[in-house]
Amino acid sequence: MKEENDKTEKEGLTRRALLGGSMKLTALAGVGAVAGFAVMTPETAHAAANKVEVAPGDLDEYYGFWSSGQAGEMRILGMPSMRELMRVPVFNRCSASGWGSTNESRKIMRDGMLPETKKYLDSGGRGGVWTNGDLHHPHMSFTDGTYDGRYLFMNDKANTRVARVRCDVMKCDKMIEIPNTADIHGLRPQKYPRTGYVFANGEHRVPIPNDGSILDEPEKYHAIFTAIDGDEMKIAWQVMVDGNLDNCDADYQGLYAFSTCYNSEEAINLSGMIANERDWAVVFDIKAIEAGVKAGDFKEISGVPVIDGRKGSKYTRYIPVPNSPHGCNTAPDGIHVVFNGKLSPTVTVIDVRKLPDLFADKIKPRDTVVAEPELGLGPLHTAFDGNGNAFTTLFLDSQAVKWNIQKAIDLYNGKNANPILDKIDVHYQPGHNHTSMGETKEADGKWLISLNKFSKDRFINVGPLKPENEQLIDITGDKMQLMHDGPTYAEPHDCIIVRADVVNPDSTWTKGDSFWAETSEQAKKDGVELGAASEVIRDGNKVRVYMFSIAPNFSMEKFSVKQGDEVTIIVSNIDSIDDLTHGLTMANYGVAMEIGPQQTSSITFTADRPGVHWFYCQWFCHALHMEMRGRMLVEPA
Amino acid sequence: MKEENDKTEKEGLTRRALLGGSMKLTALAGVGAVAGFAVMTPETAHAAANKVEVAPGDLDEYYGFWSSGQAGEMRILGMPSMRELMRVPVFNRCSASGWGSTNESRKIMRDGMLPETKKYLDSGGRGGVWTNGDLHHPHMSFTDGTYDGRYLFMNDKANTRVARVRCDVMKCDKMIEIPNTADIHGLRPQKYPRTGYVFANGEHRVPIPNDGSILDEPEKYHAIFTAIDGDEMKIAWQVMVDGNLDNCDADYQGLYAFSTCYNSEEAINLSGMIANERDWAVVFDIKAIEAGVKAGDFKEISGVPVIDGRKGSKYTRYIPVPNSPHGCNTAPDGIHVVFNGKLSPTVTVIDVRKLPDLFADKIKPRDTVVAEPELGLGPLHTAFDGNGNAFTTLFLDSQAVKWNIQKAIDLYNGKNANPILDKIDVHYQPGHNHTSMGETKEADGKWLISLNKFSKDRFINVGPLKPENEQLIDITGDKMQLMHDGPTYAEPHDCIIVRADVVNPDSTWTKGDSFWAETSEQAKKDGVELGAASEVIRDGNKVRVYMFSIAPNFSMEKFSVKQGDEVTIIVSNIDSIDDLTHGLTMANYGVAMEIGPQQTSSITFTADRPGVHWFYCQWFCHALHMEMRGRMLVEPA
Repeated sequence: MKEENDKTEKEGLTRRALLGGSMKLTALAGVGAVAGFAVMTPETAHAAANKVEVAPGDLDEYYGFWSSGQAGEMRILGMPSMRELMRVPVFNRCSASGWGSTNESRKIMRDGMLPETKKYLDSGGRGGVWTNGDLHHPHMSFTDGTYDGRYLFMNDKANTRVARVRCDVMKCDKMIEIPNTADIHGLRPQKYPRTGYVFANGEHRVPIPNDGSILDEPEKYHAIFTAIDGDEMKIAWQVMVDGNLDNCDADYQGLYAFSTCYNSEEAINLSGMIANERDWAVVFDIKAIEAGVKAGDFKEISGVPVIDGRKGSKYTRYIPVPNSPHGCNTAPDGIHVVFNGKLSPTVTVIDVRKLPDLFADKIKPRDTVVAEPELGLGPLHTAFDGNGNAFTTLFLDSQAVKWNIQKAIDLYNGKNANPILDKIDVHYQPGHNHTSMGETKEADGKWLISLNKFSKDRFINVGPLKPENEQLIDITGDKMQLMHDGPTYAEPHDCIIVRADVVNPDSTWTKGDSFWAETSEQAKKDGVELGAASEVIRDGNKVRVYMFSIAPNFSMEKFSVKQGDEVTIIVSNIDSIDDLTHGLTMANYGVAMEIGPQQTSSITFTADRPGVHWFYCQWFCHALHMEMRGRMLVEPA
Repeated sequence: MKEENDKTEKEGLTRRALLGGSMKLTALAGVGAVAGFAVMTPETAHAAANKVEVAPGDLDEYYGFWSSGQAGEMRILGMPSMRELMRVPVFNRCSASGWGSTNESRKIMRDGMLPETKKYLDSGGRGGVWTNGDLHHPHMSFTDGTYDGRYLFMNDKANTRVARVRCDVMKCDKMIEIPNTADIHGLRPQKYPRTGYVFANGEHRVPIPNDGSILDEPEKYHAIFTAIDGDEMKIAWQVMVDGNLDNCDADYQGLYAFSTCYNSEEAINLSGMIANERDWAVVFDIKAIEAGVKAGDFKEISGVPVIDGRKGSKYTRYIPVPNSPHGCNTAPDGIHVVFNGKLSPTVTVIDVRKLPDLFADKIKPRDTVVAEPELGLGPLHTAFDGNGNAFTTLFLDSQAVKWNIQKAIDLYNGKNANPILDKIDVHYQPGHNHTSMGETKEADGKWLISLNKFSKDRFINVGPLKPENEQLIDITGDKMQLMHDGPTYAEPHDCIIVRADVVNPDSTWTKGDSFWAETSEQAKKDGVELGAASEVIRDGNKVRVYMFSIAPNFSMEKFSVKQGDEVTIIVSNIDSIDDLTHGLTMANYGVAMEIGPQQTSSITFTADRPGVHWFYCQWFCHALHMEMRGRMLVEPA
């Protein structure tokens, strides 16, 4: 372990050297040496294995809902085994399921698109949908301060979107592009009374409108905070703010939301962005904003009410915090919110009970601060155990630090207290972390996950691109204990760990599900009963091919079309056995789709390659699965 | 466990019932009861955990190179921990790395495309590259009968391709479409003297040429076996055969290749395909075919020499084997090849030493058979331990069976022998299996993996689409022991398990790597030194933006283009630290790419959205990673 620490330290120094004079970190030397390390020995590692390994036949106790970062999908993991159970394509295109190719997925991806984006994607051979996304923060809907198992919400930083996944079928059912802003980053749902709102930060400041009339005039760029109606997946309202929004969270009272701001300088290059000693956290007064919207105190831009929440506004308050805060985390005690320092070795803790006085101008912004402990170098995110303790990732120190909130408050109040309870090395450079149920009032203090950005020598070498390393830590004892190294692709930023009993998906689809409502409507018009008919309906040069699947057969052995026809294949899987998903791949046509038990899926393409083309089932379904195929005969024009 | 067995049995019966009268399986009742089961108890499960869990800080002993099936990518796993270490995009498009979007990846995907496919993909807004693939069989290059760590080869059944991955950087560097055939399935490299050839089966019979002149005349369809030059990634030759090719393998002498045929009936529907009591395995005489090609005894079709290897040809022999064989596996003893029965409870074993006499017509095809043991219902694939034992997956029985080759030969020769040594339940319905180093002469008899097609109740429920379940089995003892359940997406068909010392990837790219040869050439023409210059070169309406990256900066803070310009961004990552991959995402332009340490990546798009567009690094690289960004200013037309 000594050698690893040396490497990390050396790396850390190299990184710091790169930062040059603009960094404030040189002043912080020695901060890392505040508490003893929990050193991993081979013995503890073996003890750990017994708790992390879920033996064949046993089940995981938690769901992990995981970001994949720039891979664009959401992932479902089993915890504590850290096994990836499912990929849910969201912002990416998926070769297996046909996400981005099927009519159902394209409708979801396109319905919430802004007109100018639709126009862009429909031109230049771009195929009508984005092929990439950058999914950072997956969070579940809440009722009364804890997860309710209805939906998961997540952001796309690359193409300024927010999407929703239905937890009954674990598929994305809504996706919207956020207007008047660029590159959604921080995202958290309203915790109380329910979700309700999904809060989303536009990270990068841009002109409004961003049509080229303003270009290299950064002082005219704006940042926008958005509240989305999570039930309707429509914009409820937006707030224009000062600074550069980063992460956000909500309180447990349904009164306030919070965003960190790491570039209060509103600069457009590195040295400018880190110039100030202090940046801020913005507090949004939800009730005041709702009243303001109701009273018409907004500007409508792109069809959305935009409230002016810049400094001096009655809708917001700006709490100064040390240089470039990053994570923003509400504690399960319902009282404290932690803003993580990033370039400062501190985290700043506020008490939400002081916020009414702040908005009433009875106190100053900094009067809401109740603690500001020094934790180590590069504090990025904080998680909680529900027992008054917090766990913060230290990016530069490559550590997780466990600290006590009350002791930090005591120290801030001048008492002789050391809030730091434990530190543990992680490998290496952690970003987000998360505890089991830790962002709810039911935080259970069992598991901490550290999402580390570098894995280096932790796994056998797989070439220049290395996995990230997600480390599972047991937090049931006084000392944190490292249990498992989990490699991942490409860069999961965030995750949540949810008790298994909260999530109750269905094992088959329901006939007539709204997921394929448009297809059902068309079938009705065509006089076809989905799942019962095998019919080819010709409608000019549009051909709709209705068939069903039952292992190991498609109901249609062959069908004929003419070169140039626009062909829609609609397949209803009438198998109702658990796990009996079929697929349809039309070979050499780039056509593939998933059809779950009782699901109907459809896909449209132009049959402009003449000849014999086999379609086949690509999800193994039967001993005679390979024989489950048929032919599309395309008559030459 | 009893309950699980019941479920499997019930499911098995349901499946069999579905098959109706056309199946021959009713005659096989009772076959499953030939040997004792290895039953998993909680105690053995816990003992297992100690061997499978690779503790934090320890390294896996093997690489697993994994298919992802219809997900289209290749995966690298660590074994025995079963952790996914890396995804290598191949036939799919990748949101994270920009595979399918970068100029480098598009060149690889397009260079080996047939002209008619290129034409198809360049029209109708299809974007010039396929968005899906169906990757079944990843296999490593051989030298002298064992893996040599140079390349991995793999097929795409969906769009009739074969691709290669460079093991030094673990990236796909070549991809070719196979002419004169449809839907490549079985693929194996030549084992001796080296790879050399990569053998690939066109699964679905189609007209040649498949231009619509022949449509519903299946008797005029053909199947093609292809030998690819693995060094050049060009077609060496093709052989037209009778039947419907499935899986293939090669011998350890460099003389023969083998393909199973599951539809000797050449039928186009299910009942037709399984009508015959016997199908066959085709043996290809490599030396004779090479001589035939040299002598001009071929027809050139699509620029490729096609040998006629249909029945009666001197280049092939057809060995009758029971109904619908599937897997085709050469044993590490260098002598035996196993054809797996699928619809027959048997596997058929031939002795390659008899093949010269077969081709000399001194013996009949069935005279090459030396064993044909009954193993259970639905034998699909066989792996080997290097100690004379074989492991066969039984799809319908949901079991792995361990059997002894010599005892099977003894039984075939009328001796009183029971070749079956052990059976173990797997969960559920296994397809491929594989042993550590098992397809080489260095098979080491340590691990068996069973790639099961259904997982059902083995994991917490993730909705209608379930993961597959890959089970790791310890085969060092007399009894097989189940060690780990590994869920996977979407349907990995096959994998190989390779000793870690065989694979030695680089941790950084090499400047001037051929991967971006075209970009290097263009830079030279532009007088730009990659990695040193920050320059915008305008060439009519084409704009090339050269920059470099060094954490946490791009060398360019902003650049300006005009609406409608064709913009190429070229980024050279001059960081040379292990694991310091950068990315460039151009927000709201669908542009994202990976740039590994010392790598140059480029991407081209038309700047037809005016305004301010931020580009940012999407692979965490530094405490100030979020500040690593710049602006593209697009002046309105």
